[in-house]
Amino acid sequence: MHPEDDHVVQIVDQRHLPHRLVTANLESYHQAATAIREMWVRGAPLIGATAAYGCYLAALQAPKNDVTPYLNNAFATLLDTRPTAVNLSWAIDRMRKALLEITSKEDMIILSKAIAQDIVEEDVRICRDIGIHGLALIESIRLKKEGVPINILTHCNAGRMATVEWGTATSPIYRAHQQGIPVHIWVDETRPRNQGARITAWELAQAKIPHTIIVDNAGGLLMQQGKVDLCLVGTDRTALNGDVGNKIGTYLKALAARDNSIPFYVAVPSHSFDWNAVSGSNIPIEERSPEEVTFISGLRDEQMCEVRLAPPGSAALNYGFDITPARLVTGLITERGICKASEKGIRSLFPDGPVCPI
Amino acid sequence: MHPEDDHVVQIVDQRHLPHRLVTANLESYHQAATAIREMWVRGAPLIGATAAYGCYLAALQAPKNDVTPYLNNAFATLLDTRPTAVNLSWAIDRMRKALLEITSKEDMIILSKAIAQDIVEEDVRICRDIGIHGLALIESIRLKKEGVPINILTHCNAGRMATVEWGTATSPIYRAHQQGIPVHIWVDETRPRNQGARITAWELAQAKIPHTIIVDNAGGLLMQQGKVDLCLVGTDRTALNGDVGNKIGTYLKALAARDNSIPFYVAVPSHSFDWNAVSGSNIPIEERSPEEVTFISGLRDEQMCEVRLAPPGSAALNYGFDITPARLVTGLITERGICKASEKGIRSLFPDGPVCPI
Repeated sequence: MHPEDDHVVQIVDQRHLPHRLVTANLESYHQAATAIREMWVRGAPLIGATAAYGCYLAALQAPKNDVTPYLNNAFATLLDTRPTAVNLSWAIDRMRKALLEITSKEDMIILSKAIAQDIVEEDVRICRDIGIHGLALIESIRLKKEGVPINILTHCNAGRMATVEWGTATSPIYRAHQQGIPVHIWVDETRPRNQGARITAWELAQAKIPHTIIVDNAGGLLMQQGKVDLCLVGTDRTALNGDVGNKIGTYLKALAARDNSIPFYVAVPSHSFDWNAVSGSNIPIEERSPEEVTFISGLRDEQMCEVRLAPPGSAALNYGFDITPARLVTGLITERGICKASEKGIRSLFPDGPVCPI
Repeated sequence: MHPEDDHVVQIVDQRHLPHRLVTANLESYHQAATAIREMWVRGAPLIGATAAYGCYLAALQAPKNDVTPYLNNAFATLLDTRPTAVNLSWAIDRMRKALLEITSKEDMIILSKAIAQDIVEEDVRICRDIGIHGLALIESIRLKKEGVPINILTHCNAGRMATVEWGTATSPIYRAHQQGIPVHIWVDETRPRNQGARITAWELAQAKIPHTIIVDNAGGLLMQQGKVDLCLVGTDRTALNGDVGNKIGTYLKALAARDNSIPFYVAVPSHSFDWNAVSGSNIPIEERSPEEVTFISGLRDEQMCEVRLAPPGSAALNYGFDITPARLVTGLITERGICKASEKGIRSLFPDGPVCPI
């Protein structure tokens, strides 16, 4: 994602991946909201960054004499797009606090753009540092597996396309690959939107990192068979007690990892901590359209094509996330290091609470 | 499935469900083998019954002077179609023992047809009785849930289309529905072949039983939310110690059920016990084509249409089954009653070992 010119924000419309690399221009906060809601962009950090640029577009387009109400509408609209990723409210709160302290539209434009750029640059730094700490973890596993690839299972997409660069869960994987540590990634396809099969697989193929797509059902068997050395996932919102909100199905993998004594780590940029959520029960679970379950899109004859999977008379339910209890999480990989999935662990790395530089 | 005339066995080609109800005629054991291998028919009991009718077709078509070698080829070909469902080898062994004791082709035709019919009729009786015992289980749950539907989660298809009538896991559900006990079924879509979304949902819709399709990832969250009262699945092969081989992903649901103190029952017709398998590690796990993961078929403009889901450069792996350890199974529902998932439990109902009437 980068601003194309001063009035346009260019994104990758991820709905077309892996079949097409399509970019789209966002020219208003309404378009930014649509891009988030309809999942042209997705992944907690990228949702936050897109919302921040949406605020910038709102500042640009606000009527000169009525900036504040216009911005407040923009904040509300953007905030309403998706409930689970806390990065969204974090980015908008940061904007709100900064912008509502000034009155000049020109200043708001300059400041909102600076904050959006800062959020993006900070995301790059955070993901880079998660990679450094996660690499140490992979190296420690390597000591027990000399000469054979380390098998890492990931769910959904917590890669470059969920962030701005590096990704969260994939950042240690990229680092390990760059260092010549042999890794092989089990890519959960991640129904219903198939972010794994579509996006994670595509990213890993681009980086020439060995990987294999599996259905979400398969991870348990692979763990039983000793074919998984490490589970590594992202998060949309992690509660203060270490409960992890992430893409639906994450919890099932964490259960299987525990049952087979496999380490289960979560990459958490600090902006994905919800300091107001005492536990996972405070994390809102998004419910999306049942048609995401009963229909699917893919490529046929070089064209995108949507097909019906289920009988028309059958209802479907489509929750987007689940909660992995902290007790199943071996550790959280943050930009400041790895900690236990507990309030004590989190506060040991972030004693001053939320990190929110302006 | 029923013999159309003396030389043809008619089946439902389940690949077209739920979009089309297509029948196919099997006229040779080769065609029966193809129907099993390519999953025109599937589900452990139906695989056994189809193989039995394949043996009958082989007896019909065997050269008069060379019946035994022809039949032995048929047995080997049919046995080689799918490795996990033990009903396949059970049905073929039963045929082999009976047919190789006689020499006249005419007698073989008569006997093989009688055995195939007997397997089918026995399947109906077994599934019916599983329903009676499973109904008692549902009734016991009902006592705690007066006035609200009992939510039952099932994985894959262990319904009418996996058997001849009633189904195994669905048999108690049909019975409960007939008795006016309100039930609602969570139908796991069951990637990659979507037997849940395609077949179980279709069957339940036909029977007007309330149900909702979910992705395989969703069951854990629903259990966390208290929306599942009972898990009820089938099995392709259950070991003597109670370890359950069933469609890939079953193990993950059993883990979630245990984590949320939800009863997890397996419907086991006695022909799905493998008396030679000491534990789940003796159950062979079928590996199928990766294209079942990377492509999917659905309906578009009233036509079946296959689309590509994953990038062409990414490998996929496709194991068909996993093993649910006996320790996660609350009980096995057999035609003789419900027992613990243990050798002691199984032998308490089947003290004489395999049930194999001729």
